[in-house]
Parts: sequence; C-alpha cells; structure tokens
Amino acid sequence: MKVMARSDGRSPDQLRPVTITRNWLAHAEGSVLVEFGGTKVLCAATVESGVPRWRKGSGLGWVTAEYAMLPRATNTRGDRESVRGKIGGRTHEISRLIGRSLRACVDYKALGENSIILDCDVLQADGGTRTAAITGAYVALADAVAWMRKKRMCPGDPLVDSVAAVSVGIVGNTPLLDLCYVEDVKAETDMNVVMTGKGAFVEVQGTAEGTPFDRDVLDDLLDLAASGCAQLTELQKTVLA
Amino acid sequence: MKVMARSDGRSPDQLRPVTITRNWLAHAEGSVLVEFGGTKVLCAATVESGVPRWRKGSGLGWVTAEYAMLPRATNTRGDRESVRGKIGGRTHEISRLIGRSLRACVDYKALGENSIILDCDVLQADGGTRTAAITGAYVALADAVAWMRKKRMCPGDPLVDSVAAVSVGIVGNTPLLDLCYVEDVKAETDMNVVMTGKGAFVEVQGTAEGTPFDRDVLDDLLDLAASGCAQLTELQKTVLA
Amino acid sequence: MKVMARSDGRSPDQLRPVTITRNWLAHAEGSVLVEFGGTKVLCAATVESGVPRWRKGSGLGWVTAEYAMLPRATNTRGDRESVRGKIGGRTHEISRLIGRSLRACVDYKALGENSIILDCDVLQADGGTRTAAITGAYVALADAVAWMRKKRMCPGDPLVDSVAAVSVGIVGNTPLLDLCYVEDVKAETDMNVVMTGKGAFVEVQGTAEGTPFDRDVLDDLLDLAASGCAQLTELQKTVLA
Amino acid sequence: MKVMARSDGRSPDQLRPVTITRNWLAHAEGSVLVEFGGTKVLCAATVESGVPRWRKGSGLGWVTAEYAMLPRATNTRGDRESVRGKIGGRTHEISRLIGRSLRACVDYKALGENSIILDCDVLQADGGTRTAAITGAYVALADAVAWMRKKRMCPGDPLVDSVAAVSVGIVGNTPLLDLCYVEDVKAETDMNVVMTGKGAFVEVQGTAEGTPFDRDVLDDLLDLAASGCAQLTELQKTVLA
Amino acid sequence: MKVMARSDGRSPDQLRPVTITRNWLAHAEGSVLVEFGGTKVLCAATVESGVPRWRKGSGLGWVTAEYAMLPRATNTRGDRESVRGKIGGRTHEISRLIGRSLRACVDYKALGENSIILDCDVLQADGGTRTAAITGAYVALADAVAWMRKKRMCPGDPLVDSVAAVSVGIVGNTPLLDLCYVEDVKAETDMNVVMTGKGAFVEVQGTAEGTPFDRDVLDDLLDLAASGCAQLTELQKTVLA
Amino acid sequence: MKVMARSDGRSPDQLRPVTITRNWLAHAEGSVLVEFGGTKVLCAATVESGVPRWRKGSGLGWVTAEYAMLPRATNTRGDRESVRGKIGGRTHEISRLIGRSLRACVDYKALGENSIILDCDVLQADGGTRTAAITGAYVALADAVAWMRKKRMCPGDPLVDSVAAVSVGIVGNTPLLDLCYVEDVKAETDMNVVMTGKGAFVEVQGTAEGTPFDRDVLDDLLDLAASGCAQLTELQKTVLA
Repeated sequence: MKVMARSDGRSPDQLRPVTITRNWLAHAEGSVLVEFGGTKVLCAATVESGVPRWRKGSGLGWVTAEYAMLPRATNTRGDRESVRGKIGGRTHEISRLIGRSLRACVDYKALGENSIILDCDVLQADGGTRTAAITGAYVALADAVAWMRKKRMCPGDPLVDSVAAVSVGIVGNTPLLDLCYVEDVKAETDMNVVMTGKGAFVEVQGTAEGTPFDRDVLDDLLDLAASGCAQLTELQKTVLA
Repeated sequence: MKVMARSDGRSPDQLRPVTITRNWLAHAEGSVLVEFGGTKVLCAATVESGVPRWRKGSGLGWVTAEYAMLPRATNTRGDRESVRGKIGGRTHEISRLIGRSLRACVDYKALGENSIILDCDVLQADGGTRTAAITGAYVALADAVAWMRKKRMCPGDPLVDSVAAVSVGIVGNTPLLDLCYVEDVKAETDMNVVMTGKGAFVEVQGTAEGTPFDRDVLDDLLDLAASGCAQLTELQKTVLA
Repeated sequence: MKVMARSDGRSPDQLRPVTITRNWLAHAEGSVLVEFGGTKVLCAATVESGVPRWRKGSGLGWVTAEYAMLPRATNTRGDRESVRGKIGGRTHEISRLIGRSLRACVDYKALGENSIILDCDVLQADGGTRTAAITGAYVALADAVAWMRKKRMCPGDPLVDSVAAVSVGIVGNTPLLDLCYVEDVKAETDMNVVMTGKGAFVEVQGTAEGTPFDRDVLDDLLDLAASGCAQLTELQKTVLA
Repeated sequence: MKVMARSDGRSPDQLRPVTITRNWLAHAEGSVLVEFGGTKVLCAATVESGVPRWRKGSGLGWVTAEYAMLPRATNTRGDRESVRGKIGGRTHEISRLIGRSLRACVDYKALGENSIILDCDVLQADGGTRTAAITGAYVALADAVAWMRKKRMCPGDPLVDSVAAVSVGIVGNTPLLDLCYVEDVKAETDMNVVMTGKGAFVEVQGTAEGTPFDRDVLDDLLDLAASGCAQLTELQKTVLA
Repeated sequence: MKVMARSDGRSPDQLRPVTITRNWLAHAEGSVLVEFGGTKVLCAATVESGVPRWRKGSGLGWVTAEYAMLPRATNTRGDRESVRGKIGGRTHEISRLIGRSLRACVDYKALGENSIILDCDVLQADGGTRTAAITGAYVALADAVAWMRKKRMCPGDPLVDSVAAVSVGIVGNTPLLDLCYVEDVKAETDMNVVMTGKGAFVEVQGTAEGTPFDRDVLDDLLDLAASGCAQLTELQKTVLA
Repeated sequence: MKVMARSDGRSPDQLRPVTITRNWLAHAEGSVLVEFGGTKVLCAATVESGVPRWRKGSGLGWVTAEYAMLPRATNTRGDRESVRGKIGGRTHEISRLIGRSLRACVDYKALGENSIILDCDVLQADGGTRTAAITGAYVALADAVAWMRKKRMCPGDPLVDSVAAVSVGIVGNTPLLDLCYVEDVKAETDMNVVMTGKGAFVEVQGTAEGTPFDRDVLDDLLDLAASGCAQLTELQKTVLA
C-alpha cells in the first residue's frame, strides 16, 4: 500500500498531538478540555442524585451525554440549534453515540440511583470531534466518579473499564488514523471506532462516503483503530494518575 | 459455538420469510410493502424534478429518505412525533442511514438535477425495521428510476449497483442473522450491515449493548451479514425481474 | 334531477366498493384496514388503563382519535408534519371530528376509567378519508372493546350503538354519494355526515365550496347520506358478525 | 315543544343584544368591535397587495382569517398559544371556518391580486365567539373593501353578497337561538350556521354533544338559524348604511 | 434648551391624555383599559391559588406578567407569535419588565401562597406600550388584591406601594416626556422609567439609539420621568378612590 | 458610607482581575476569551458579506449578537435551550443588549453592506456575564474589522469609538463595582452600564431587586460604573495595541 504524505506531515498510523486538561471548569464535578490537534472539546460531567422516571426504583444509575457545537467552531458560522428551535439529526446521532459509548464502562448497580450527564461542547472543530469527545468525556466521568466516591454517594465502584475512541479512514487508497478536517472531506471511507481499555469493541461505525469498501479494507481500518485507541488509553491513564 | 434454539425455530444463519410486494400504492412512482417476518414497512419513492438549494446548478441529482413509525406499529403505543412537535434522535439517525445507504448505488450525474425521496413508514415492527426499510426502499427506488427513464427524465442510468441490509447480533454467545424483536432485546451485540449487490460494504454499525465484543466475534458477524445480504440481493433481483 | 355520468361509472347514490379487513395489525387491541375505493386507511385501537388527568377519579372512560396522512398517500408528496414540527389545521380538525364521532356511541361509565385511542393513518387517499376513517375506526373500536370485555376490564358494555360516516356533495347540480377525489375537487357543496346505526345524526358538516346552497339541496344531501350510512352500518354488522 | 325559561330571560328564538361598532381601531383598513351579549370580538381587516405564493400570477385575490382568544377572555385563564408554542386544534378549526365563510361572499377576480386578512380576537367570551366573529368580520371586510375601492386598488366590486352567522342548539329538548355560555355547556346538540344575506347556506356544522339527533330536530334548528341570520343581516346593513 | 414643537402640540414635559377604565372585562378579578393617547392596552389580573413549583411551601406569593400585541395594533400587520410558534425577544423582554416592576410594590408574605398573573394585551399601539401597560396593570392588580382581601384569601395587605411608568427621550436635542410613535422613531435616546408612588426608582432603562448620551442629559431625563410618574401616580389614586 | 468587606477581599470600587486573550479560536475573523474573575466568555466575531433582507440595498452594514451559556457554566446544570426547543427570555434580552451596545460604536456606512455577528458563549459564570461579553466582544469586533480592512472589504473605518460595560450594585447599603455571583444574589439594586471609550452612556439598566432606590443611590452607582468602564477601556486599548 502506497504511503501518501499527510497535510500535517504525520505518518498514516500517527495520532495528532492529543492533550487532556483536567479541571478546566470550576463548577462541574468533572471537566476536561480535550484537544486532538485543532479540535477542542470541553467535556463537563454533572452528577445528579436520582435517575430518569423510567428507571426509578430500579436501584440502577444512568449515564447520558449531550453534544453540541458552538456556532463558530467551524470555518463558516453555523446557525445555533436553539435559535432554529430544533436539534439536527447529526447532533442527535453523536449525543446518542457518546452516551452509549460511556455506558459501556459503567456498572449501573455500583453507581446507585444517580445520574451523570456528560456535556461535550465543541469549541473548535478540525475533524474527529465525536471521538475526541468520547476520549475526553471518559476522563471527566472518571473525575466525577471519584468525586462521588469521596462523598460516598455510590454503593460500589461504577467504573469497570475505560473507553477511548478514534476515527480512521481511507484517503487516496491509504488507511489513515485520526483524520483531520481536510482528510475527512476527501475520505472515501470513514470509520469511528470506540474501544475499551482492555481492547474490546464498543462501537464500530463505518460508512462508505464514496466507493463501497471490501473486507480487506475493513480489516486494515480496524487494526489501525485498535492501535490508536490503545495509545489514547495510555494517555488517559497517565493524565488520571 | 453452541447453537441455541431461536424463538421461531430458525437456524442461526436463516433469514425470516421475506416478501417484497411492488406497486402497493397507486400514486407513488415506486412503492413496495416489504415484510421481514412480522416487520412490515411501506416504502414509497417520490420523484421530483429539481434538487435542494445547495446542489442547484451542479448538474447532479439527489436521493434522500425519511423513516417513521406509526404509533401502534409496536407493542405499546408510542406518541406521534408530529404531536410532540419534534423528531426523535432514533428517527433522525435511521432516516440518515437509509439515505446514505441508497446513495451508495446511485450515479448523481446520470440522475440529472432530479430528486428521489424515499419514505419508509413502519406499519408493524418486529425488529430489523431499518434493514427491511433499506432492502425494500432499493426496490421502490429501482421502480422510480425505471419510471423516470421511460419519461426520459435522466441523462443516463442512475443505478450503478443494488443495496440490501440485514441485522446480525450475538444472543447467548451465538451469532444470529436477522434478529426479531425478542432476540434484539436480549442481544449483547447488535450490528446492522448494508452491502451492495456486488458484495462490498456500504455501512457497518456494530454496537455492544452489554459486554464489549472482540475481533473474532466481529468477524463472525460480518460473515453472517454477508451471507444474509447476498440472499436479499437475490430476492430483489427476482422481484424486479 | 339530471343524472351525470360519474368518473368510475357509479350511479349518483352508489357507494364505492367498501372493504373492511379486521386484525390487520398484530399488536393493536383492534385494527382495521378500511378501503372506500382507492382510499385506504389503517385504523388501530389502543387500550390504555387510566384516563387523561382532567378526568381522573370520575369513574368515566375516554375515547380519542388521531388522524394523519402518510407523505405519499396523495398524488404529490406532502411534507411530514413531524418534520415541519407542527400539526396542520386540517389534521387537527379531522382528528377532533373522528374522536367526537366515536364518543357518540360510547357509554363512558360502562367503559370505566380506561382510554381507547384510535389512530387513523391514511395510507392512500382518493377522497373521503375522514368518513372512511370513522367507519373503519368504529370496527377497530368494537374489537378493542371485545378484547377488554374478555379481560373483564370494563364494568359494563361501553358500546351503546354503532357509528358510520359518508361524504355527499353537489357536482354539476347533481347530488352524489361518497365522492372520490376528482369529484371532491369539482364539488360546489361538500358535506360529511356521521350517523349512528339507529339512524340519528352525530355530525353534519356542510360547506359551500363555490355557490352557497339552499334548503332543498341540503335536504337532498341529507337523504343521500342517510342511505349511504345505512349501507355502511350493514357492512359493519356483517364484518363484525 | 315545551318552552324553557332561558337564563337571561330571552325567548327561545331571540338573539342577545347585538352591537357592531365600526372603526374601533385607528390603523386597520376596517375594524369592528362586535358584541353578542357578553361576547366581545375585535375584528380587524388588513389589506395587503399581493397574494400567497401558490396564487401568484392568477389574477385572483385571497381572503383569510385568524381567530384567537385573549387569555382572560374566559372565566378561568387559559395559557397563551404563543407561550405553548403551538396553536390548538380548536383555534385552527375556527380560523379556517371564518376564512371559508367570508370567502363565500367574495369575487376573487374583482379583488385583483390583493389579500385581506381578518384578525378576530376574542376580548371576552360568553358563547358564540365564532359566529360573532364571522358576523363582525363581514362588516370589517366591507369597510376594507370600501377603502380599497376608494384607492382604486381593485378591478371591480369584490363583495357579491353579505355573510352572517349564528349558533343554535337543543337545551332540555328546546331549540334555542344564539346560545350563551351556560346554555352552550348544557346543550345536547350544538349547531353553527353561516348564511349569506340572500338566505343561502355557506356552512352548516351540527354536532351531537350528548344524544344523537334526528331529522326533525335538525329541521327545527335550521329554521331557527335562518331567522337569526336574517336579523343579523339586517343589522349589518343598518350599521354599514 | 430649545423647545421643539411636538407633533400633537404638547409641551415637552406634558403627558398625553391618559385614561384608565376599570372593570373593562367581566371575568377577570381586576381589569383595566388604559390609554396613553392612541396607545390602548387591556390589562387583566388573574388570581390563582397556589404558586409556581419552585416557590411551593415557602409561604410566599408570586406576581408575573405576560405582554403581547394584537397583530393589527400597529400600522402594518405583524405576524402572530402563536403562528410563528415562538415568542420574540422584544415580547419576552417587556413581559419580564412588567412582572419585575409590579413585584416591587408587593409584599409576598402578605399575599400568601397565591399568584397574580397580569395579562397586558396591546389593542392599539402609538408608542409607550410598556409604560402604559405597567401603569394600567398596577390598577388591575389593586382591584385583584381588593377582590382577594374581600374573600379573605391573603394573610395581610400585599400592596406596600404603587407603581407607575413613563417613557422619556431626546428628540432633536430636546428632552420629551411620554413619547408617541413618531417621536419614538426619531429619538436619539430613549428611556423607560418605573417609579413607586413614594418616588423611588424601580427600573431605569436608558438606551442610546443614535448618539451616546452624557450625564447631564441623563439627569434631565430622570427629572422629566419623575414628574411624569408623579402625575400618573395621582391619576391611579383618583381612579382607585 | 460604610465599607463592607467583599467576599474576595476587593475594595468596593475595585474590578476583579480582567484578562482578554485575543485569537483564541483558529477560524473566526476575531475571537477573544474574556475573563472577569471566574466569569469566562468566549466571544467570536464572524464577518459575512451581505446584510439581512430588510436592510438590502441601503448601502449600510449590520452588527448583531447572540449570547448563550453552556449547560454547566453555572453551579447547577441548566437545560440546553436547543433541547427545550426555545430560547428563554433572559437569553433573548442579553443578546439584544449586546447587539445594541456594539452598534453604538459602529458607522454602518463605513462598514458597507456587510454583517458582523458576535457570538458570546459563557463557558463559566460567576456574575457579570453580560458585561464581560460586551467588553470582550468589542475586542473581537475590532479584530474582525481590522481583518476586513486588510481585505479592503469596507469603504471606510467602521469603528467610531470603543465600548465597555460593567455591573454595579448595592449590597448591604454599599455601592459595589463589578459584582461576582454571591454579591449579585444579595444585591438590593443591580445596574448594568455600557459606556463608550469617550465616556458617554450607551445603556443604563438599573433594577431594584429588593427595595426601590432613590436618586442619590443612582448617582453613586453611575459614578462607580463610569470609573469601572474607564479602566476597562484602558485595558482594551492595551490589549489591542
């Protein structure tokens, strides 16, 4: 497979510089500014006692997420969803993905009847906002859980694993890790992969933007994603240490 | 791998009885009632000359989809989204998936500046509504395209391939093809796979509902999905012949 | 009175072929596909224990209806009300009419504090969708009530009569029964009449679309409607027998 | 038929005191405060050059109406529809009724491509708000048309007739004209009738609130309504003279 | 300072003719039609036992307001906010201002856990609608409180003062009291001032529409406003006597 | 006047530490992170060629603003306005205030038919978010204007002055400058003042939260605000130098 030069000089299997800054906000029980290159997402974890109505009395907790983008996070300004009066399909889809991903590492029973809401607001976008959000939100979640445990709010340890995510894609026949915006736009195939710290898959979402892809390509992309997630897992561990 | 008895007596790699009834509606340019066992989806293809504003003057066509469920398609009645005044995240997500999937077999240039809208309304739900919708919508799309070609509306043949979709999942450690509702509810992992008639992947969406899954499981599920999609492709060919 | 030839060869006082198919859906407590010629409406009756807040503790039940049209039920595609984010005036008006009509044959006390919701979704429209909906919904209601009585959910027999409806109108000076779409468009006067099985009026809604009409015309139309409703009542009885 | 004493001492076939005050507003091209007893509706006619998009280039005009109620028009305060963010079914229904009724006396060609919007806002409600609105709106419409003709805005005389409306109903087996609120609440059958100045019917909307009604009752109610509308027509003439 | 001739011949420090008509509505606990020249606002006070959720169990009452404008209150017709499905920023802002202003003269404890809602609907607009609304709403509030006290609904006297409001502004370098619409449009600076009967400030909202203003101008405007509010306070007293 | 100890040890007439960081975002034509103590607002200026419909062909430009708060900017999480489907009154009011304030220093003619939108998103709130937003937005606006002038987009220099804002209030009888959240909550009177760099007033919005205030207090607050705005103006100059 031919290796193409990337716009920022990375090798195909190289992540962008990733930084995770904890405690970025004063009020939230956990908060993180996560940066994947030019992508900046502010992740805030809010702890609320109680669970949604449909879960009351179950003894189980709940974790959910809301994703949004500031109007000028992108190159041209987007309308605010609050002004339009409704949430777009893409926003809905990503919020649901983040929530599902983080629930994969949570033991609801150990959490008790408490809720954790993860707000992931994209301050600046340069590709991979949903994977950055998941990776950062895990750290905010871990801080919020630590805060709860200190307050003896939960019956056990609700975190059974960690979760990280990365995008992969095919650009000009080359499988690339962690696509930035200009790569994302040109990608024939685009895949978001969420994995646990132990290396199992939580979500695999692959889409042929142009030409449909065959099984070999899919296998290459999964290998690349697994290596990226492993590196992000290490970073999460270091940051939380 | 242990083979578990399925609720309807199928073998793990067996589809439910699938029927595709063409021309179910009098007015639409293409229309299909597709049934995957107890799941019934009415797919209507509407041809409109012209394209959305952002595509005007490009010489290219557009294909989009809207998915919805009748309130009593399910076991307990759901509120109408029109009454609630907004479309839910799940509806948005599936509409987008159907649109993307069908666009994978369309040559926009050959379509000319025309739009085809695929309305997929679930009359009765028993698992796999989105995959049934995609499989049926392709046939409605093919009929609509035939109608356009007869009217000499498009510069070329807009259909470059066919598209079919099926769900697969892990229930009690067994990989199963085409999950019905009771299986879907118990599934640890759930995957929707969209493939072209030629056997390439258009979408792979796998989600760990319970335990995260490893690569071997993913491989088994992809094999199963490929065999299911191949059978559905054959059925589409027969029906359209 | 001059007899004009009708587009489908019917005599002025002749109904279109009407079919009522019971148990069209697997989940609903009562369900009917009703067809008045090319008009097809799916009527689903949902039983819920409990009543709306304003009726709680009264010992009385409630019956309500929601009417809607699939986007491609008509000759040109209509936008979904869920997408527009609001229900149109026509939809509201017809939903209210169906609910009021069916409540005319219900003994709330015998129903107990239970609710029955009638969803009437037009799959294909060719005039007279509201009258077909009322006529079909009555059969779905009867099935739902039978289901409740079998489960001993209601203190008595909530059905005190039956209800059927038909449209009548003046086209080219001729009073016609059960207008199809092309007739409806040309009608100078258009009237929807809902009657009980015993022959009393529940609703009379006459509108001069063009020239205002005088009392003689009104009398002719009411006669025609009474004969149409009587035939529909017979059909309902046969179908439910 | 037994004559029942009415709460305000009227005979069964007697209207409440009706007053129509022209030019109640300074800005509108026509405006009327109409009072049917305790019911007060402010009707404002707005002339706009141009017609809705779907009518452009037809050479024909358009007349439409919007009905609303102030929150404290009624005995207990109702929420504002602007605050709830949607218009209720009843409001929609009445707005459509008023528009249809007034269009019955308009020659669209003579109006030219101009629109008249009739805003009917209920300041105080005591039954019969929709019929008062129609009766008053006709006078506002006539004033607006006069204003237009003075400005030579329309090619001909757009008013081909006049329109008035009244409610009738059965209370305690007695047919009553022009029901006030306490009567309306007790009515077994309730009918709104819109008629032209020449005595033809524009709308007949009868509803059995309790017991379904037979043809004799319907005939009695129509007679009563015809006499009421004739009186209102006389008043409109006097007021406009 | 040069004295400019005003469009209606008033002196710079002269109010328009102000009339306050009590008991304009039959149902409301307090109601007033207030007129500041051509500006007519209908103010209705509704008493409800109980308070909003966030205040329950506090022993304290609540006073709130909703402001709106009829579509044809103005020179050209405005769309209804109920039709647009959302309340505009200006409406929100004025509703909040009226509520805050009236709460300044209310002793929540003496009111007990009761709510008073002030609906201020502009029937005709000619500048100063918000200040007319506040001035009239106070009188409606006083009548509602009197009604409550008669019914012994409140533990004490909830009215600790009165409240009145007036607009002032700079037009052509001259400070003017109580601007009508044509003056408002030309004003470089526009200020709304709410004061208690005892002469203290409740709200001061000054805005430079054109040139920013200096401290001297601000002082002049405050003087003018104080004199206007004092006159309105006197009128309120007279009307309520 | 008694001097009360402030929670953060400031003297009554002392601002919190204020920092303005330019170019915080990569994509916006001007962007600033402004901090007033614990209050952090991200201000992004977007340049768009063209103006809103109602201003087209005038040769004049337009400046507008949108204010919003991230859900966890505050001590307890607030619902997203996009999720609720409507913008609250407070948000509307502040957006309008920011827009009006910045327009006070803009020459629309020199701007040409271009628009500048100022998005002010509160990342963390500790009182004074609207005044911080105005002060920061001016710097973002200045940067956007510089960007335009470099591109020769505007016919002249659109900035005729600068704008800064600060809050003042009475807490425990002491007038305080630049209230933080705990002070704001206790304030009897709360005032936001917007001034130009040259020292003239753009907006004065004073509200008695508890006791109405007299003229002396108002004068003290205006003095305090003028001194605060002068300091902020100096900072803006330094930062932009």
